[in-house]
Amino acid sequence: MTSNLPTAVDPRALTEVLDGRWAHVRRDAREHLHDPGLLPVYGESVAEARERVTRVARVLAESGRVALGFPKEYGGADDAGGAIVSVEMLAFQDLSVMVKAGVQWGLFGGAVQLLGTERHHAAYLRDIMSFDLPGCFAMTETGHGSDVQQLRTTCTYDPATQTFDLHTPHEAARKDYIGNAARDGRMAVVFAQLVTQGEGRGVHAWLVPIRDEQGNPLPGVTIGDDGPKAGLNGVDNGRLSFDHVRVPREMLLDRYGQVAEDGAYTSTIEHETRRFFTMLGTLVRGRVSVGGSASSATKLALDIAVRYGEVRRQFTAPRGDREVAINDYLAHQRKLLPALAATYAYTFAQEELVSTMHDVQGADQVDERAQRELESRAAGLKAAQTWHATRTIQLCREACGGAGYLQENRLPHLKADTDVFTTFEGDNTVLLQLVAKGLLTGYRDAFGSLDGWGRVGFVADMVRETVLERTAARGLIARLVDAVPGRDDEVPMLDRGWQLKVFEDREKHTLESAIRRLRRGAATASSATPAPDPFDVFNDVQDHVLQAAQAHIDRIVLEAFVAGIERTTDDAARALLDRLCDLYALSTVEAHKGWFLEHGRLTAPRAKALTATVNALLRELRPYMVTLVDAFAIPEDWKGAAILREEAARQEAMHAHDTTTHDTVLPAGTATAVEVPPGQ
Amino acid sequence: MTSNLPTAVDPRALTEVLDGRWAHVRRDAREHLHDPGLLPVYGESVAEARERVTRVARVLAESGRVALGFPKEYGGADDAGGAIVSVEMLAFQDLSVMVKAGVQWGLFGGAVQLLGTERHHAAYLRDIMSFDLPGCFAMTETGHGSDVQQLRTTCTYDPATQTFDLHTPHEAARKDYIGNAARDGRMAVVFAQLVTQGEGRGVHAWLVPIRDEQGNPLPGVTIGDDGPKAGLNGVDNGRLSFDHVRVPREMLLDRYGQVAEDGAYTSTIEHETRRFFTMLGTLVRGRVSVGGSASSATKLALDIAVRYGEVRRQFTAPRGDREVAINDYLAHQRKLLPALAATYAYTFAQEELVSTMHDVQGADQVDERAQRELESRAAGLKAAQTWHATRTIQLCREACGGAGYLQENRLPHLKADTDVFTTFEGDNTVLLQLVAKGLLTGYRDAFGSLDGWGRVGFVADMVRETVLERTAARGLIARLVDAVPGRDDEVPMLDRGWQLKVFEDREKHTLESAIRRLRRGAATASSATPAPDPFDVFNDVQDHVLQAAQAHIDRIVLEAFVAGIERTTDDAARALLDRLCDLYALSTVEAHKGWFLEHGRLTAPRAKALTATVNALLRELRPYMVTLVDAFAIPEDWKGAAILREEAARQEAMHAHDTTTHDTVLPAGTATAVEVPPGQ
Repeated sequence: MTSNLPTAVDPRALTEVLDGRWAHVRRDAREHLHDPGLLPVYGESVAEARERVTRVARVLAESGRVALGFPKEYGGADDAGGAIVSVEMLAFQDLSVMVKAGVQWGLFGGAVQLLGTERHHAAYLRDIMSFDLPGCFAMTETGHGSDVQQLRTTCTYDPATQTFDLHTPHEAARKDYIGNAARDGRMAVVFAQLVTQGEGRGVHAWLVPIRDEQGNPLPGVTIGDDGPKAGLNGVDNGRLSFDHVRVPREMLLDRYGQVAEDGAYTSTIEHETRRFFTMLGTLVRGRVSVGGSASSATKLALDIAVRYGEVRRQFTAPRGDREVAINDYLAHQRKLLPALAATYAYTFAQEELVSTMHDVQGADQVDERAQRELESRAAGLKAAQTWHATRTIQLCREACGGAGYLQENRLPHLKADTDVFTTFEGDNTVLLQLVAKGLLTGYRDAFGSLDGWGRVGFVADMVRETVLERTAARGLIARLVDAVPGRDDEVPMLDRGWQLKVFEDREKHTLESAIRRLRRGAATASSATPAPDPFDVFNDVQDHVLQAAQAHIDRIVLEAFVAGIERTTDDAARALLDRLCDLYALSTVEAHKGWFLEHGRLTAPRAKALTATVNALLRELRPYMVTLVDAFAIPEDWKGAAILREEAARQEAMHAHDTTTHDTVLPAGTATAVEVPPGQ
Repeated sequence: MTSNLPTAVDPRALTEVLDGRWAHVRRDAREHLHDPGLLPVYGESVAEARERVTRVARVLAESGRVALGFPKEYGGADDAGGAIVSVEMLAFQDLSVMVKAGVQWGLFGGAVQLLGTERHHAAYLRDIMSFDLPGCFAMTETGHGSDVQQLRTTCTYDPATQTFDLHTPHEAARKDYIGNAARDGRMAVVFAQLVTQGEGRGVHAWLVPIRDEQGNPLPGVTIGDDGPKAGLNGVDNGRLSFDHVRVPREMLLDRYGQVAEDGAYTSTIEHETRRFFTMLGTLVRGRVSVGGSASSATKLALDIAVRYGEVRRQFTAPRGDREVAINDYLAHQRKLLPALAATYAYTFAQEELVSTMHDVQGADQVDERAQRELESRAAGLKAAQTWHATRTIQLCREACGGAGYLQENRLPHLKADTDVFTTFEGDNTVLLQLVAKGLLTGYRDAFGSLDGWGRVGFVADMVRETVLERTAARGLIARLVDAVPGRDDEVPMLDRGWQLKVFEDREKHTLESAIRRLRRGAATASSATPAPDPFDVFNDVQDHVLQAAQAHIDRIVLEAFVAGIERTTDDAARALLDRLCDLYALSTVEAHKGWFLEHGRLTAPRAKALTATVNALLRELRPYMVTLVDAFAIPEDWKGAAILREEAARQEAMHAHDTTTHDTVLPAGTATAVEVPPGQ
């Protein structure tokens, strides 16, 4: 493959495409977010970290930059997308600050805004925005993290006193991992089972004071501390228990369900499960911002590792006059470049997601189908981006060797702080299952009833039609796919249509075969044997179903990359993105080579050619590695990695010294590239 | 597949096999190593951690348990294997203590013992063993971690004063990441380029005082602190620079190279590179103990995740009367069980490695071939076990959800502390390359000269013959492989001979095709074009060569598992290990399914059957998950994970409460297994 890439690509042209619809929010953050408290401090204690982060939260509140998502009438901007992007930008600095902001203005403030009604807004929103009222989002319990419909905290209405009785019946019902609980929170949005007139009405939320003005727990409220964590130690996660706490009737956040003075329950959404998921659905913003923040942290880690690999040298090549830059090793490129390509891909997918969320939530009419699709997309991209972050930051840490292990080089914080992203705001495996369920029910709707299907009680009843639903650039993608000639194994692998087609094919086939297996499992019910346990039917296929979800996410991410390239007007930037997209597509196919071979989608010779093509792409993209991280446009003072300041000068000083003294001191022979020392 | 496993397996029978040759050392540790200072303390500062670990190092020294590896004449036991196993046992508690011990008695003490001579032993070994003389192993420099043959520190002999002049010419030559340097070290074994009579003689080591009795740096010595790290904060890693420090002639550790009063240099090993690697080779113990310690940490993480998954419940099945234990989900089994199987496999491989090391190093005659093979094995298993640790501990963290992120549940420390294992004592990628080089040169020796081979200057000249060299249980393995009938695709996948054969085949084919590619690359030299750059020839094939190394390691690990089963006398334990070995073998084949399909080693139907067989093995092994971690025999007070003490009781209390109140409070419908909340 001969490279037809331009010799120089202006990273600013790439930045413009990556910045997307909320470019103004990103530029504003790069220009103004420079408070030193926003950076992680190495070696600080848990108490010091919490203190600093609380102080910085006030600074952020005063800047007004956190208010974007709130209603204009309370000083906000009704800009849900902008609010998400603001949080993503915070994630380039201390992730504790990002999470603290996410808890206060995203989860807590968002719940009051979206689950509450006018009187709650009028009474509390301004103080929430200013951080004068720090609060908690108290949903998760020690015993229920993934299945929150089964929360065990109860809130029982008593018409005699016109108050609710909020109660934690046992330790598994204790609220746990709650941000702002251990130190700062004055109130909490508490999720509990509503009981009124002797009947359970499902999970609802109340706004509950938990501390007095002096910061002491209120009567009946027990507050615990989750203590030191793996990371995010600037966030004061804690535990809340309630011993028959009286909550006034009007503190029920009653947008979706109301309790009258006499205890009569009303709601515009009749079905309890549906009501619950409608309530949860309004809170999708949290999940979207975690995915985006994971992506920011990934970019910073790649920025550090790529720049270090550019100047760091090790082992002299036989004919070299100095040591080889580690970015020149194929094994190093194999680590960093596919991760970089995937990071670009996810950035485009995240941009599309934020934009969709902004439009869906800002629409006058609630479009239930669009809402469901948004939730599925948010779940899938949250899982994909946070796993990608965990893997990539680990890889960047290792790519910096011992230096990557020192806090002064930033990677330890990035790694420890983002680690929990794979399980909070929804455990990733459970989220993938949510995506799969959307696909399965969508399939049923699109193709009619499936024999025996109804017996698999595990599949819920909501209407979704997400199967092969096209993302942005629909028309273009369909044209590219349609233009692929019949014989797959003759199409060049760099043909975008072929790439799109095999991604689509993998999703469709994986899903269809999962459905066939589910159907077979359920169908044994009609034989002489007793009906199979629906759990066993589903569980036997669980890994397969999760693969279908993964294939779906891979496809929407590739399509988003294609749409992003389509928006690129600068020719050089576009050419580079085109190649990077090839790398994303083909390294993904390579990672799933087994599937493609097993299902006759790749012949053996073509599978071998695939590896060679990926390696050729790495060689072609090698000279652009620094350009690709330059395009992330991360301000220097946000990075705080000592090696970025020091390593280049060190290498030059060594080189200058070597050229005068080398002969008398160092061994004459060529160093072999493969020997290593014990370390310490 | 119908299970033929016994209904009960006594974990003690498994423990006995896992404990192996140094069972007495393991039992002694389980019985006596119970100082509270040996456990990590959550939330302690860097200063507090260093203080505690230093204190505990003295306790360990007094126990005599660290002396096993030293000569009997100085109070040791000449038991190199026992010394490694002692360190592995420390790794079940605070890994900072393990590393501190490894630095003091493994690296520092080991260098004095193995590179020094009688006068060094007499003067220093006792004080090293008692920790009265804390010391450093100062090899790595800021500029050279992997390629230590190119260290830039110089040590120049001056016959006039009969001293060496030790000097750090620039910052890249600064000693870095050196354990015991920042706080405790009084002396250091410093590696530097020896220059005498105007000639460079390559890297040698000197014993150099760095601090006085009051702990102040000695004149000319500059000591820096690496500061807080991602983990291992109880170890005081630091930096050392020398400004023309005078070192007496007798402080050269002169076992392999001597400098006479007049500066004349002598050595029994003439070739400089060979001398250097002989010196390094004696230090293989460090690498062996890091691999083993990674395995201990992995076992503890699995112990925590498996026990939590056994009592933790989430989502109610349609016909269930309570929620499903998360170990019952296929997706959860897919995470934990293959990791558990691989951990067993590595344990057997590590046992074999330690035993080989003990015998090779204890032999009267130096067997150079055995020495080289040992180094290659140590490198490969260090890389494999530390990557496995990083992956598995991450997976266990995620398997425990938010609880896994709290320090009180131990996993954060395990994760952060072991992270650096993948790059210290040799960067794993560089170590794999070392393994590959051994295979390549072994191949050349076994099969004669390869055309054009000599032109690939990157391949070194040492003699190795490791290709398909059998591990323990040679005879048994050969018999099993030979018994496999011709048509591979008709042999049952649970046939051990077939499994062994496909592992062997993958190694052999990957290696041979890498060699063909190298040969082709080098051969283009004979055409009209100029000779290719040997670096490019090697670099183009680097990923392929690393795969060959990985395939080699996978094979020796499987063979070690088979040998371990062969040693098992208890029938029930043996049956269970047999199944677990099937899972290790088949999940490894599954992970490399693409390769096997691409190379015609698996047909498509057989690849599909493989997935079904792995799932069937998971179902069959599910009831034994707790038995399999029981067998690790980790004392309760070493675990220090709050969820292990609390979760079971919490679940029972909830269940008891639910059975009385459930109907009035919780929603009537079946929970769907796929919905998740936003978290915080």
